[in-house]
Amino acid sequence: MANRCQAELIAVGSEILLGQINNSHAQFISNELAKNGLYVYHHGAVGDNEARIRTAFEIASRRSNVVIVTGGLGPTVDDLTKEALAAFLNRPLVLSEAALEHLMQYFAGRQRQMPEENRKQAYCIEGGELIPNENGTAPGQYIYDKGVHFFLLPGPPLEMRPMLRNFVLPRLTEIFGDRQALISRVLHFCGIGESDVDQQIQDLTAGENPTVAPLAGEGEMLLRITATADSEASARAKIAPVEAELRRRFGPYLYGVDDDTLPSVVGRRLTERQETLSVAESCTGGLLASMLTDIPGSSGYFLGGVVAYDNRVKQGLLDVPADVLERDGAVSEATARLMAEGVRRRLSTTYGIGITGIAGPGGGTKDKPVGLVYVGVANEHQTQVYRLQYRVSRAQVRLRTCKQALWRLLGMMD
Amino acid sequence: MANRCQAELIAVGSEILLGQINNSHAQFISNELAKNGLYVYHHGAVGDNEARIRTAFEIASRRSNVVIVTGGLGPTVDDLTKEALAAFLNRPLVLSEAALEHLMQYFAGRQRQMPEENRKQAYCIEGGELIPNENGTAPGQYIYDKGVHFFLLPGPPLEMRPMLRNFVLPRLTEIFGDRQALISRVLHFCGIGESDVDQQIQDLTAGENPTVAPLAGEGEMLLRITATADSEASARAKIAPVEAELRRRFGPYLYGVDDDTLPSVVGRRLTERQETLSVAESCTGGLLASMLTDIPGSSGYFLGGVVAYDNRVKQGLLDVPADVLERDGAVSEATARLMAEGVRRRLSTTYGIGITGIAGPGGGTKDKPVGLVYVGVANEHQTQVYRLQYRVSRAQVRLRTCKQALWRLLGMMD
Repeated sequence: MANRCQAELIAVGSEILLGQINNSHAQFISNELAKNGLYVYHHGAVGDNEARIRTAFEIASRRSNVVIVTGGLGPTVDDLTKEALAAFLNRPLVLSEAALEHLMQYFAGRQRQMPEENRKQAYCIEGGELIPNENGTAPGQYIYDKGVHFFLLPGPPLEMRPMLRNFVLPRLTEIFGDRQALISRVLHFCGIGESDVDQQIQDLTAGENPTVAPLAGEGEMLLRITATADSEASARAKIAPVEAELRRRFGPYLYGVDDDTLPSVVGRRLTERQETLSVAESCTGGLLASMLTDIPGSSGYFLGGVVAYDNRVKQGLLDVPADVLERDGAVSEATARLMAEGVRRRLSTTYGIGITGIAGPGGGTKDKPVGLVYVGVANEHQTQVYRLQYRVSRAQVRLRTCKQALWRLLGMMD
Repeated sequence: MANRCQAELIAVGSEILLGQINNSHAQFISNELAKNGLYVYHHGAVGDNEARIRTAFEIASRRSNVVIVTGGLGPTVDDLTKEALAAFLNRPLVLSEAALEHLMQYFAGRQRQMPEENRKQAYCIEGGELIPNENGTAPGQYIYDKGVHFFLLPGPPLEMRPMLRNFVLPRLTEIFGDRQALISRVLHFCGIGESDVDQQIQDLTAGENPTVAPLAGEGEMLLRITATADSEASARAKIAPVEAELRRRFGPYLYGVDDDTLPSVVGRRLTERQETLSVAESCTGGLLASMLTDIPGSSGYFLGGVVAYDNRVKQGLLDVPADVLERDGAVSEATARLMAEGVRRRLSTTYGIGITGIAGPGGGTKDKPVGLVYVGVANEHQTQVYRLQYRVSRAQVRLRTCKQALWRLLGMMD
């Protein structure tokens, strides 16, 4: 383990602890390191308080050999990262002529005098190395001390990201030279429960390389396969047979891999087939249309839809006859069928989806309880209607219904 | 400090350290706690490894008196949060009849046998208290041990969030709220930029009790006023003059307070006035309808809408004449106007909203760049059209447009 990267990420900034901003650096840096076979074991965030930042360094240096810190390198009195590390390492801060020169040039290039407070940014921890910042005033710093590699990077993502890619990653690769590639593959399933899958993969989850682990998903099921090897190609070669086995066991439920989502896969399939889609939504109230149109380029296959929250809309824009609404009710197999067929006919699309149900919390009856949903999927030849019964929150009923509808649409395309 | 909340958040899950998912819980929980005047000092994330989770608890219990843990409560062998805390506290895990009953009912309600492995979820740390989970199998747990309050919550956001709001926040308020009342008031503004506000409140943000702080908002601006006093009434009395001053300065932009959202405020106003709404969406593609129907009871005032992604839908369902689409284009003042009027007329509602624009990333031209949006709001007497130009991501364009539309609708009701 001595020569293996055990990285820890520390984000500095009280605005993170107040929930005012999301610490998106943690995900970005972790992902970049993982792609390079470098392991991250801890994430942390701490406020603009010198004692607490110093303690975070103390804890990190006991358990990690790489500490990447973001934020707290600005010119204000609240920016304390450098000061805290200097104190922790018991090293002085010294003026760097190179850093001062960079600052001068930065401001000169903007026809501005350097404000006096920015001079603070030219101070570096003694024995450290500057990390050039092409997009801002704060230089980064690299310091090696008693077995720990510290990298200090500024908070703004447009400054931090190129510094990570141009300096930190090459340096870490150099240090942990016999690097192992760490590759992951995520499989997405729908129509099957997590516990059903879990029971059938215990032989696979017991493995150490590759590992197989379920990930949390709402209305779907994700499995992650992760392998390490001395090259990306051989890591992928380790993943392949496990993926093949999972496809053999759960193939009918697999809808995508890695960054795929149900809306993106539906979009890709429709584009390939040069087919189109329209949707008629009652209880999901526009959520399905919104998920579809989240995808850039969706206008190529998604023509639009009708949010038929009120029965008058189901009649007026979708031609659901009043007597069906009267006899079977708005939440019924017949209404879902007629909504799917109605929107498909009105918008002249290859497929039409119709959704009607009771998302709750109110509106349920004994015969038609909260969580009852009908999903209709229509093409030129047929209409399939699925009856779903959920016992989850309003938001979950809506989201799961939309995913089921897309999953059933994929089924009709097979 | 002894009786002041010093909270630490720990997210458990290797997928977070691999950068596969973003630890969005940290921001959400921090923000909820901040709104309640509860302080968070540390965020951390750790993988699915019992020893490392235990060490995280060890470190946290030395410096924090509240530890909120998310994730790792599932039925699989990778789910180790409970086991790690039990080991750290040196307490056994015991079968909870109540938790088992909940699990049995959960599966019975789904006409399924409980898988054997889910039995694991019925085990609780001895001396702990169950936190009910209405939306999933994993109960949460609350354990108090040697001065530290531990809250274990499941990872899926739709399960975790209500548990935080319904159990954790009231409990923390009970624990830390009795000596000193710590009251917050959040004011919501729309139609004014954060930097405009910031510059005009520097006299108020300098105060110590109450404090005034901006909170993160997308397409809106939030200010939190927080006061401490020996009673809730006197804390509120401290807040009142500051709120009055903010209302004096920014009154025209204020749309709500505390948990209000634009869709909830619009819903309340429409209900009070016994008026109705319909929407016609092009570039927002159902997002506005979805935001409106997120609100329970929205069927009382929201009749429905048309997602007119394709021009044929704008013609066929909204009666936008072909020659207008030809002459002015789909993204134009005239089209937005006709969409708002068309949907209002077709659905016979008091108000109609029409939205057309270019959310990007593709589809822009020199005359009509990405981020150009027209929003029309119509009632019986008039139609107002607003031209917006954004320079943000597709998702942000869509969300900000929807908020602007609701904000403009509120303006028409005044």
